[in-house]
Amino acid sequence: MKRAGDDEGAQQQQQGGEAAGGKAQSKLSAAAASAASGPGWTKVSCPCCASERVEPLVLVKLGPKVGPETKRWLMKLIGAPQKDGGAGLLAHPGEDASGNIIVVSAPRCTLLRATEELGLCKSYHNGNMEAFSYSDRDNFKDSDNMEAFLTTAERQYMVKYELDGLRAQRDLRIPGLPDSCILQNRDNIWQKLGSFGLIVDTFPLHEPKKLKELSEAWYAGNQLVQPLDKVNEYFGSSVAFYFSFLDFYTWSLLPPAVLGLSIAYFSGEVQREMLESVSGSQAADDQDDPGLVISGHMVQAVFSMLWSTVVMEMWKRRSASLSYRWGTLTLAERFAEPRPGFHGDLGVNPVTGRVEPLFPEWQRDLRMALVSVPVVGLFLGLVVLGMTCFYWGEARVQQLHKDWDSLLSQTLLYVPSVLHIVYTNMLATVYRTVAQTLTEYENHREESAYENHLTGKVLVFTFFNCFAVLFHIAFFKQDVPLLRKRLASLLIVTQLVNQVTEVVIPFLVDRFISAPHRTETADDPEEDKFRNQSTLPAFPGLFAEYIELLVQFGYLSLFSCVFPLTAVLLLLNNLTEIRSDAYKICRLFRKPCYPPVANLGVWQIAFEVLSFVSVVSNCWLLVLSPRLQKRCQEGELSSANLLLGAVIVEHLLILVKVILAALIPDEPGWIRKKREHIEYTSMQALRQQVNPTLTLLHVLTTSSIPLKTFPPFLFPEAAN
Amino acid sequence: MKRAGDDEGAQQQQQGGEAAGGKAQSKLSAAAASAASGPGWTKVSCPCCASERVEPLVLVKLGPKVGPETKRWLMKLIGAPQKDGGAGLLAHPGEDASGNIIVVSAPRCTLLRATEELGLCKSYHNGNMEAFSYSDRDNFKDSDNMEAFLTTAERQYMVKYELDGLRAQRDLRIPGLPDSCILQNRDNIWQKLGSFGLIVDTFPLHEPKKLKELSEAWYAGNQLVQPLDKVNEYFGSSVAFYFSFLDFYTWSLLPPAVLGLSIAYFSGEVQREMLESVSGSQAADDQDDPGLVISGHMVQAVFSMLWSTVVMEMWKRRSASLSYRWGTLTLAERFAEPRPGFHGDLGVNPVTGRVEPLFPEWQRDLRMALVSVPVVGLFLGLVVLGMTCFYWGEARVQQLHKDWDSLLSQTLLYVPSVLHIVYTNMLATVYRTVAQTLTEYENHREESAYENHLTGKVLVFTFFNCFAVLFHIAFFKQDVPLLRKRLASLLIVTQLVNQVTEVVIPFLVDRFISAPHRTETADDPEEDKFRNQSTLPAFPGLFAEYIELLVQFGYLSLFSCVFPLTAVLLLLNNLTEIRSDAYKICRLFRKPCYPPVANLGVWQIAFEVLSFVSVVSNCWLLVLSPRLQKRCQEGELSSANLLLGAVIVEHLLILVKVILAALIPDEPGWIRKKREHIEYTSMQALRQQVNPTLTLLHVLTTSSIPLKTFPPFLFPEAAN
Repeated sequence: MKRAGDDEGAQQQQQGGEAAGGKAQSKLSAAAASAASGPGWTKVSCPCCASERVEPLVLVKLGPKVGPETKRWLMKLIGAPQKDGGAGLLAHPGEDASGNIIVVSAPRCTLLRATEELGLCKSYHNGNMEAFSYSDRDNFKDSDNMEAFLTTAERQYMVKYELDGLRAQRDLRIPGLPDSCILQNRDNIWQKLGSFGLIVDTFPLHEPKKLKELSEAWYAGNQLVQPLDKVNEYFGSSVAFYFSFLDFYTWSLLPPAVLGLSIAYFSGEVQREMLESVSGSQAADDQDDPGLVISGHMVQAVFSMLWSTVVMEMWKRRSASLSYRWGTLTLAERFAEPRPGFHGDLGVNPVTGRVEPLFPEWQRDLRMALVSVPVVGLFLGLVVLGMTCFYWGEARVQQLHKDWDSLLSQTLLYVPSVLHIVYTNMLATVYRTVAQTLTEYENHREESAYENHLTGKVLVFTFFNCFAVLFHIAFFKQDVPLLRKRLASLLIVTQLVNQVTEVVIPFLVDRFISAPHRTETADDPEEDKFRNQSTLPAFPGLFAEYIELLVQFGYLSLFSCVFPLTAVLLLLNNLTEIRSDAYKICRLFRKPCYPPVANLGVWQIAFEVLSFVSVVSNCWLLVLSPRLQKRCQEGELSSANLLLGAVIVEHLLILVKVILAALIPDEPGWIRKKREHIEYTSMQALRQQVNPTLTLLHVLTTSSIPLKTFPPFLFPEAAN
Repeated sequence: MKRAGDDEGAQQQQQGGEAAGGKAQSKLSAAAASAASGPGWTKVSCPCCASERVEPLVLVKLGPKVGPETKRWLMKLIGAPQKDGGAGLLAHPGEDASGNIIVVSAPRCTLLRATEELGLCKSYHNGNMEAFSYSDRDNFKDSDNMEAFLTTAERQYMVKYELDGLRAQRDLRIPGLPDSCILQNRDNIWQKLGSFGLIVDTFPLHEPKKLKELSEAWYAGNQLVQPLDKVNEYFGSSVAFYFSFLDFYTWSLLPPAVLGLSIAYFSGEVQREMLESVSGSQAADDQDDPGLVISGHMVQAVFSMLWSTVVMEMWKRRSASLSYRWGTLTLAERFAEPRPGFHGDLGVNPVTGRVEPLFPEWQRDLRMALVSVPVVGLFLGLVVLGMTCFYWGEARVQQLHKDWDSLLSQTLLYVPSVLHIVYTNMLATVYRTVAQTLTEYENHREESAYENHLTGKVLVFTFFNCFAVLFHIAFFKQDVPLLRKRLASLLIVTQLVNQVTEVVIPFLVDRFISAPHRTETADDPEEDKFRNQSTLPAFPGLFAEYIELLVQFGYLSLFSCVFPLTAVLLLLNNLTEIRSDAYKICRLFRKPCYPPVANLGVWQIAFEVLSFVSVVSNCWLLVLSPRLQKRCQEGELSSANLLLGAVIVEHLLILVKVILAALIPDEPGWIRKKREHIEYTSMQALRQQVNPTLTLLHVLTTSSIPLKTFPPFLFPEAAN
């Protein structure tokens, strides 16, 4: 099988070359009217995929020195059937054979096969979502119309998936490149071509019309509800999950916001504290309402601790139903080919029986335990070291200023802060590279595992970086007013700064620096529009967005009891965040391309862990609360008893949270039934599968019916 | 289908009646030589199941007033094919048609179908364990020899499963019974017959030869290793899992036992305490080794807390590999028919598409929340009430004794204890009935869910009952020496009492009361031996065994730091426990019949919960430890700081335990691969299933090959 098709390939190359070598085809999609070998597009390898219209999905940007010969070879590779080691896609050379772009699309069969391989669910003729099966494709709705059957994001991801998955089937020389650039057997072609400088970029194309519709429904008006299905259609489930979570989380901020507002309104103490923390002045402290043991802070703390568990459990349910709706309930990543960066000795995968690189689990565990964990620990240590130096430096400088009291010493006052900021930023940059290297070294088989481990590493560090100071104030300095002040400034200042750096600056850059070079008119050839998209910066990824939410959630759940208005501020922030994030992803960046996902992955865990840690921190902060401390000093309450009370409350709250988390099912009943139905169907299928192919093949080969009267997928053995 | 086969049934009845009505067949298994309709046994409905030897599996004991007509009807019912509403089994009337027993066996097809229905795994021709599929049966090892393919326990369970699952297919009158005894459509026949008094008992038969072999390998000699596979073969996976856990747990007691011994040997303080707790005298308290902050108690406590997590995680791995080995990894109970006691409105099960009784989940949840939880709470309250009354009564009586100091008052001293014991026992008996009623009322669909909820309820109560006093001493009285004393007496006395009541008494009863009536010689007709087995008492169930282990584990993990020799005593106890339990189940009771299981179920959770609660209790006990309390009193350590330290240690330990539990995978790598392989195969099967039967049927019906050349299971549509 592997060596077949070389001759056809050569023919195809010629034809493709001729067609491509002609004049510039300005309207790709319209021009590809004459089906199978439409002008410009490479030929479709199977007849069923011939289509009137070919939709440009992904743009491959070539290096500046790529000759027409190499480009022809690349297009041939993209267009060749998968069994010949090609990608089974459609390629278009852009305006002419020497231009530095290739536009890629995908025929129906490749898309359907990829749908099965990824394990996506699609609606069955009876209305249920079922795991898609290529051989049963006729029973799925819309399986003849790819634009209705798959979302835009799915089609684009599949193209990228096929390209990224290309592997050399034997040692290959690349035409037009020096002899040193050689592809060895089983090399990942796309990675190698990237390292040769042949391919600069591969990214999905925006569709201006759809994008306009989406943005109108999303952020242009005063919508309260986000068009999540449309977001999923256009950007894929990763992005859609982020926005769904942002949406869900924002609305679930309402109860704590209302509670916070009413506490701030009714409790004089809280009002005074708020004022203090914002104005910085120390108001008179002795006018508190006496007698009340349960303060607004306590109510707020207990409420927010239980609230966070309920919210996370409800989100899991929401997440399960979104995942069912978007067909990602049965993703089969672990049964698919390993990710391109995965390496190991060739062997037989014990699960799937395929020959592929294998890497023993224990070796990965060993690498994690002996390399990754210590290195991450080292960096966390460096954060602590930096903080210690900062505090030490600040103390020294203040001492100096006190001693000298000159202009120079006043300037010196800023030095520790500046140094600390520079140090922290440098450390973060270095750490990001180190984390990537470490995760690469751990050699994960699945893309999602890689992503989760990388995210986990960066997350721990970033979180530590953000919260080290606050924890230091709360647990070592035990200075609640300072904590409140710091929290208020973080909440107000950081969020403003974030919004500005995230949106306003890219917007200005785009509007006044990039855009003038990129004026488009409707008459421009489509290729120019595609090329324009490649001048946009790449989307920086969802990590920054998620970590922002997580840090917010941290402020809210860990320290909410010292600053009851946190939820109100976050609610306001998030309502604008939804819009600005949407604007950003639609307008300011190249279209991102993420694999389909079924949940938030490691972020889910991070939020849940935070929700449990919050119990400890809140209980501790309540012990530190000035009112209780005062009572202790006055001898009304022994500090041991106070502590004992706090510990009992903490244990009770954790118990309640654990019970709540166990009692609220992680998926709604109807999803559970659907999932079990899918499992049942697959169990039934296994039971009915007698290797019917083998049994029947035996009967049929001894009978008079020619085998080709049967659909070929029934008898793969017969095809050889 | 349902109304078919009435005529054949009638014929069969006649023939069966004639054969059964003949002279007594003394050697059932040998006599059944002439295959299909062997003398005595009802006819096999399918030709492939005709066998030389029919193995008696289950004994049905009929009520005293059952006439031959009714017995004939029952045998017909047992023997009728499943599609006619029968059990598809083989029945033998015992010595004659009027005797009060029916011996039941099962033909091959029924067993194979049941194997598939239960979702058991069996070894495939390539050596892997695969979920058994009836249509692929030829590829499974030994699938033509039931005695090698299925374990004895599985065969017997399947017979019971088929009998218990019998449902009336229409309204039926039972011959020989008054007209009031009528079976209505979809009634569970076996339950109804039980309530009519027609069937007194249904239990699997012991096989003396195998039993002898098993007992020789198990407890007769000085074996250190239990023959777990043989136990699984003979008693089934429920019992085998209990003994595996007992074994695993006993060996894992070694490290804490060694540690406890060395602490007791090297620490003077601990030795003194031990002596005190056993002798009851208060030795001089001021000769402790000074300066050492970390005492043997602390080492013991920290060790045992981490040990318990590691043991439970390792057990999960062991449990997974046992479950793979015994073929219970893919049990499909939730896809099978609901349990006999389940009731609800008839409807279509959304998962399997079968018509069966349905009961909405929310209604069950409501019943649990509004009925079960309050009732269980009430009973727990009654336990506390009883304890309070006991303490109050004891105080009063002691006061009285002090005031009067007479013989009467001395006798009165025992009254509260006696009353409390009587009260507790009565409460436990009432509670057990109530728990059963409640669980029945909750109406669980699956047998395992029913069992787990019932076990959970009884477990919480029993545990509370056992530990209420200890917790009271530890947390309210805060009296560590008393706790130590109580623990020592519980460990030594209770265990001795348990062993005596569990084994010695039944043994004596059996030996001197029952056995004389049951003298067997080798020449006795087999029926008599069977009948003798029914005079043995029924096996009391594994609940008592598990709760004993759990309570032990509780003593060890919750309070280990006050009595370091706990592990040593438990180790000694368990080494005898293994033998006595084995002897008990082999010799003293009727053979029990449990469904196959894949793990310990709710017991696993109970052990894990205990292991986490132990951190709280141990840290608290360390705070109470006399040495630290003395330091507090001497002012070296403020009690707030002591508490703070304990809280920090507790949180750290819980963190370490959570991380340990997360890091140790719940199943060994090779099991994970096997399980994923099973999942992959079933996914592949689903994908290849194009309804190939339908597609092919279309091709074939228009072709020249007669359909009957294909195996009939391929074309069930064609068979109709």
